[in-house]
Amino acid sequence: MTHSRTVELEGHIIDSGTMQRCFGAVMDLGGSFDVERFDVGKHETEESHCRLTVSADDPETLRDILHELHQNGAVLEDPSEVELVAAPADRVVPPNFYSTTNHPTEVLYDGEWIDVERIEMDCALVVDPEPGADAGEGARAYTKTLNAVKEGDLVATDQSGIRVNPPERPRRGGGAFGFMQGGVSAERPSESTIREVAEELRAVKDEGGDVMVVAGPAVIHSGAGDALADLVAAGYVDALSAGNGFATHDLERSIYGTSLGMNVETLEHPRKGHKHHIWTISEIIRVGGIEAAVAEGIVTEGVMYECVENDVDTVLAGSVRDDGPLPDTITDAVEAQDAIREQAHEADLVIMLATLLHSVAVGNCLPSTTKTVCVDIDPATVTQLLDRGSAQAIGMVTDIGTFVPTLAEFVLEGDDA
Amino acid sequence: MTHSRTVELEGHIIDSGTMQRCFGAVMDLGGSFDVERFDVGKHETEESHCRLTVSADDPETLRDILHELHQNGAVLEDPSEVELVAAPADRVVPPNFYSTTNHPTEVLYDGEWIDVERIEMDCALVVDPEPGADAGEGARAYTKTLNAVKEGDLVATDQSGIRVNPPERPRRGGGAFGFMQGGVSAERPSESTIREVAEELRAVKDEGGDVMVVAGPAVIHSGAGDALADLVAAGYVDALSAGNGFATHDLERSIYGTSLGMNVETLEHPRKGHKHHIWTISEIIRVGGIEAAVAEGIVTEGVMYECVENDVDTVLAGSVRDDGPLPDTITDAVEAQDAIREQAHEADLVIMLATLLHSVAVGNCLPSTTKTVCVDIDPATVTQLLDRGSAQAIGMVTDIGTFVPTLAEFVLEGDDA
Amino acid sequence: MTHSRTVELEGHIIDSGTMQRCFGAVMDLGGSFDVERFDVGKHETEESHCRLTVSADDPETLRDILHELHQNGAVLEDPSEVELVAAPADRVVPPNFYSTTNHPTEVLYDGEWIDVERIEMDCALVVDPEPGADAGEGARAYTKTLNAVKEGDLVATDQSGIRVNPPERPRRGGGAFGFMQGGVSAERPSESTIREVAEELRAVKDEGGDVMVVAGPAVIHSGAGDALADLVAAGYVDALSAGNGFATHDLERSIYGTSLGMNVETLEHPRKGHKHHIWTISEIIRVGGIEAAVAEGIVTEGVMYECVENDVDTVLAGSVRDDGPLPDTITDAVEAQDAIREQAHEADLVIMLATLLHSVAVGNCLPSTTKTVCVDIDPATVTQLLDRGSAQAIGMVTDIGTFVPTLAEFVLEGDDA
Amino acid sequence: MTHSRTVELEGHIIDSGTMQRCFGAVMDLGGSFDVERFDVGKHETEESHCRLTVSADDPETLRDILHELHQNGAVLEDPSEVELVAAPADRVVPPNFYSTTNHPTEVLYDGEWIDVERIEMDCALVVDPEPGADAGEGARAYTKTLNAVKEGDLVATDQSGIRVNPPERPRRGGGAFGFMQGGVSAERPSESTIREVAEELRAVKDEGGDVMVVAGPAVIHSGAGDALADLVAAGYVDALSAGNGFATHDLERSIYGTSLGMNVETLEHPRKGHKHHIWTISEIIRVGGIEAAVAEGIVTEGVMYECVENDVDTVLAGSVRDDGPLPDTITDAVEAQDAIREQAHEADLVIMLATLLHSVAVGNCLPSTTKTVCVDIDPATVTQLLDRGSAQAIGMVTDIGTFVPTLAEFVLEGDDA
Repeated sequence: MTHSRTVELEGHIIDSGTMQRCFGAVMDLGGSFDVERFDVGKHETEESHCRLTVSADDPETLRDILHELHQNGAVLEDPSEVELVAAPADRVVPPNFYSTTNHPTEVLYDGEWIDVERIEMDCALVVDPEPGADAGEGARAYTKTLNAVKEGDLVATDQSGIRVNPPERPRRGGGAFGFMQGGVSAERPSESTIREVAEELRAVKDEGGDVMVVAGPAVIHSGAGDALADLVAAGYVDALSAGNGFATHDLERSIYGTSLGMNVETLEHPRKGHKHHIWTISEIIRVGGIEAAVAEGIVTEGVMYECVENDVDTVLAGSVRDDGPLPDTITDAVEAQDAIREQAHEADLVIMLATLLHSVAVGNCLPSTTKTVCVDIDPATVTQLLDRGSAQAIGMVTDIGTFVPTLAEFVLEGDDA
Repeated sequence: MTHSRTVELEGHIIDSGTMQRCFGAVMDLGGSFDVERFDVGKHETEESHCRLTVSADDPETLRDILHELHQNGAVLEDPSEVELVAAPADRVVPPNFYSTTNHPTEVLYDGEWIDVERIEMDCALVVDPEPGADAGEGARAYTKTLNAVKEGDLVATDQSGIRVNPPERPRRGGGAFGFMQGGVSAERPSESTIREVAEELRAVKDEGGDVMVVAGPAVIHSGAGDALADLVAAGYVDALSAGNGFATHDLERSIYGTSLGMNVETLEHPRKGHKHHIWTISEIIRVGGIEAAVAEGIVTEGVMYECVENDVDTVLAGSVRDDGPLPDTITDAVEAQDAIREQAHEADLVIMLATLLHSVAVGNCLPSTTKTVCVDIDPATVTQLLDRGSAQAIGMVTDIGTFVPTLAEFVLEGDDA
Repeated sequence: MTHSRTVELEGHIIDSGTMQRCFGAVMDLGGSFDVERFDVGKHETEESHCRLTVSADDPETLRDILHELHQNGAVLEDPSEVELVAAPADRVVPPNFYSTTNHPTEVLYDGEWIDVERIEMDCALVVDPEPGADAGEGARAYTKTLNAVKEGDLVATDQSGIRVNPPERPRRGGGAFGFMQGGVSAERPSESTIREVAEELRAVKDEGGDVMVVAGPAVIHSGAGDALADLVAAGYVDALSAGNGFATHDLERSIYGTSLGMNVETLEHPRKGHKHHIWTISEIIRVGGIEAAVAEGIVTEGVMYECVENDVDTVLAGSVRDDGPLPDTITDAVEAQDAIREQAHEADLVIMLATLLHSVAVGNCLPSTTKTVCVDIDPATVTQLLDRGSAQAIGMVTDIGTFVPTLAEFVLEGDDA
Repeated sequence: MTHSRTVELEGHIIDSGTMQRCFGAVMDLGGSFDVERFDVGKHETEESHCRLTVSADDPETLRDILHELHQNGAVLEDPSEVELVAAPADRVVPPNFYSTTNHPTEVLYDGEWIDVERIEMDCALVVDPEPGADAGEGARAYTKTLNAVKEGDLVATDQSGIRVNPPERPRRGGGAFGFMQGGVSAERPSESTIREVAEELRAVKDEGGDVMVVAGPAVIHSGAGDALADLVAAGYVDALSAGNGFATHDLERSIYGTSLGMNVETLEHPRKGHKHHIWTISEIIRVGGIEAAVAEGIVTEGVMYECVENDVDTVLAGSVRDDGPLPDTITDAVEAQDAIREQAHEADLVIMLATLLHSVAVGNCLPSTTKTVCVDIDPATVTQLLDRGSAQAIGMVTDIGTFVPTLAEFVLEGDDA
């Protein structure tokens, strides 16, 4: 027996690749389709509309197909309301709970399509029918990580009554920011690409947007710390997300003039230098933290110094490979994720510098609409980060030690002009 | 003033991504389009048909857009005959000569669409109106590298009268062979993927197809030489394309039991061993070549031995980093390319093992319809090879030293069954 | 004015590279040396002895030189007792505290050289004069991480009275285990090297030693989970150190038959599969943990299952990129490090499989005398791990998806024999 | 029965690692040693001297040990004259011919130690007793590749009468140029290291030395072509060794403003651009070569243009992956090697930029005393090049697209000062 359902898609569904993915999904999963209607936008600015009946030999296959189409933005012809089930206990979601994508999403609740807030992938979708004192406000919907689910939360199950809106290909260009492109090539002109990033950074700030920098220890080793500190001092960084290692290397530079024992200007490697790392941590523990160390004049320059001086929202997330750690480091992973999540949801542009661990952590919390720049010397890292699915991303396989100074130069020369 | 032309596309143009690429190209290049007609295949087996008018503000932009659409299979509404210009001298092509893609191509000559033979990218397209004694045969068309063009050859210019047929997405599955997928992931189950390659290899041979292996020296260093020799001995390899280094390492193993001086079984590194390499070359020069060395019993096992014994079509292409070289090595790059080209055009399945240089050389000569398997430990190499554009390719980031033995085991266990 | 001190070195100080490093350090740091006496071992089994006076123009340089020589095993001619200072507060060490190396170390306390226990680098060195009820026992010395230091702990400062014993080059062979070799070459025969690892693994178990496996999620993605589970089931793994991702992928395989949604045997990619990951976590949270899931029959195979069934000491350390996490995951980094430290100090052989983060965490806790095997497809990862300084290490750049099955085959075929 | 020989070593044999390697080799190969005498240089400027008797159970082992010691600079106690055998035919060397290292070497001929000229590894060593008309000149010795050996050449066999002089560790510093260091770390401050390379480049030119640049196509793709052209124009490059691809990309930029079709300044990718590559080659063929294209005003800027204008010694070596090739490309590998060899023997500093193939070709011809700088984004490439064994090398894992502009800036700002 054949099982069928009819779905609808609309938007720039041809050139955004939506139709290709939908047709492909049906065939890959062993179903078949009949195109009921296909109104192709006559012009590049007109949207297309498609009504499609998909069929499969068994209900499971049909469900899998519908799931895939759903994720590409298809909605059932006659959508029903979102199905909500109360969470039976803290951190426990109902079976078959709806797990979110990172695309803008709506739920059909009480006859209306409500925007889901705080979009983030792999979360539960919770509807709050009465979100508070403001009686007139109506229901709200938002994502919750498994950890944050509370007993009684109304959690969406299945996918009915949920509409996903994947980003569409911009009608015009997009410069260095590619649309949903997976591959990463080292074969791009480096300085021109950095100039585009610089322009984007300035543009975001000009529009009052928030810039978040995610930085790994290599930024300091490679001698790029001063340039990043300059960007912070000039107000181009609103949030910094890093780890214990990054902060320690940066503080070591201010206290001892070395990074992991190497003088990054003279290249001299004071043999005793590899103890500077652990001594730096000990020194910061002694005074009680980075702010105290700045206040007491122990730390007088560098990225962490500028973050303190410029009130940059800073999160240092701990990891099992940390030495110390510094008192400022959040050692609990869940607590650290929550802090990162707050930063990520504020950001309009995220610049990921030479850290896979922290970049993935940040990327996990980002909606697909946030612009991201990923820079690493390892192409596998850049590929992995781009695969997370920002619709507007620049990936650069380059040397962080020349990237940051060049970026700072391009950004700051604009200030002089 | 607006300049416009109307083109037509047909086939599985939605799910093969053709429409997406065409619409994208028009917008990227600053033109606009009007869809005159779009008949969408109602069912996954029905082809679609689209008639599209593209416009631009100036004739140059229009030409660029038409060029791009052309490469995606679009033809002008009323195609004119191919434009042919005689080459003014050997190796000199007319200005604005048509440079081929690697997709199946036809030319409209004397009122008929003729298939272009020996498809290969970045070549001139030559039409031979009277290809020989066989009067009844009619005109033929084929590709010629710049080097091979002779004075008087009728070379196609512009793109009118030329139709490109990019491969379409297979209607069903495709197993491990992905359709036009650029990205490469190390995150695939290794042994299962190798099993699929083994099945494909057996299938190609069962159908009487030709298998070409492209191998780098790492195959021998990594201890995989015996396994490759077993595949050759069992008749699974019809052509071998390699370099002087591969052959020398393999011959060294047979003569001295080492590869670059290391015993690949005991891992002992006879200190004197690094001289074995140059002594091996000297020994082969002395007897006059590899066949002679086999005949005289100097070489008694290994890949080169089995290739001689099993009449495998072998090409050793020289490079500037070669020691020696062996007398069998073709030191002239153009001559070597021609030899590789002959092999490549025969192949139904090409397996590229741990060599970027030789794989690119082979890839340059392949039509997009030849199945290829690319194996390398460096993801950048695999990505670069897949980017060359085979429509059916498997890329594996894995260790050649375990890949080849596992492949041989899977292929040959089928023989026992 | 010239400042000088005389130090002594003994052991196989020429062929272990000690003298080369010491002479180099003096020259690099701008000092000079006079060899007072150098008795070279006449035969390869005889130790050498060297008395050396080093000089520098200022006391700081001399101190830096002495520090460097100290770390290579030099002791002052007339060593004084270790200098101990009480820690002023919890987690606060005295200024100029001695930061440990990962080499076996002794302290001169109360006229006797005492072995330092729990050797680990970048720690404080604490002496406990009266370690407990057992009056006859005498003083003990051990390392403490900064975090673990308690107010009043007697912490060693400076380096006087401390003797470091770097590992010496083994007199014979060492097989695949190189002595202090930093570089990594992919140009080694893969299967032969794996066979050596297998033999070492069996040898360690035959001698009653402990084997610790550190595993990343790629072990499961790559289809190697079954082989690792087989090794666990056969009793070859005493401790497993991994992360939330590894465990989740493994549990997903048992529950859904997929890893990140891909069936690792058939390579089929159920489109809905990428939800399996988050559903798996939700399921384990529901029942309360992995052991409960095994007990209730929800998880019936795989690495985690075998670890539960075989009482393998398992640590799952959390990180900021985790989904969930599972209830078994230790989310606090310091707590997780302490758990890893216990495992690491027990281990006689550590096998690091495709995870940089967890391998570094484990490596940080290891003395330089523990044998380690590092396997990753990324040469940069292997290099970084070998640089941590095990004296006996094998680094392999290979595919974890073929490495583990081949290793298991080689190890287990020994059981049948 | 025990077989023994006595050898002598002298120089800075401890801190250059010579003794460590020699003792290690004896033990690895299963021999034993007795130190007859060991005079250790008392001070860092004094040389040491060692007389050593090595023994083995069989003559083969002893020979292998002696070979290894020989390569580290050991000479037999009573060295005999070099053993010469006439080559029986062109390209055929006598059995057991001596294959050279890349270290400075002498031969004992007619009672005198003669320097071997044109030092290069894996060559035959030929002595010419009467090197020409200049009767008073005495015998000369030089290396010859197997290919260049002529019938009757007096070729050294065995290693008696041959003394190798491996480079010694410099007494002081060495800056960024490491001594014989194999490993490569990305963890170095990028801009400071580039500044050191710039200073070295200026120093070599100030001393009248020759600078050779080896460049891959990525130099042009990455937008670094202008900076390299500036260095050529300013007279900092004496020789350029590259391939057909590099030259074509550079010429394409001059003719079409694109590299492989991409505008490296605006990042625009004219869709038709990928035809520029093949059109460029066709254009150069038409006019007869690069010099002609410059003379006719077709090529007016770029690296190749500056090389023509500044009479830089340029070699374009062909390879099997070339398109075209250009008429200037030497397609025969042996002929190309000979041309590269001439360049390499002249060079005092070699800078290798993002090409493995050409860098290995050049490295093969270099004595161990030539300073080299290797720059690539792939750590495996840098490692492989450093392993070739220059005694003074800098390896940088960085982005060629930012490296060359930064280098040019640092070098040329010195000109203004």
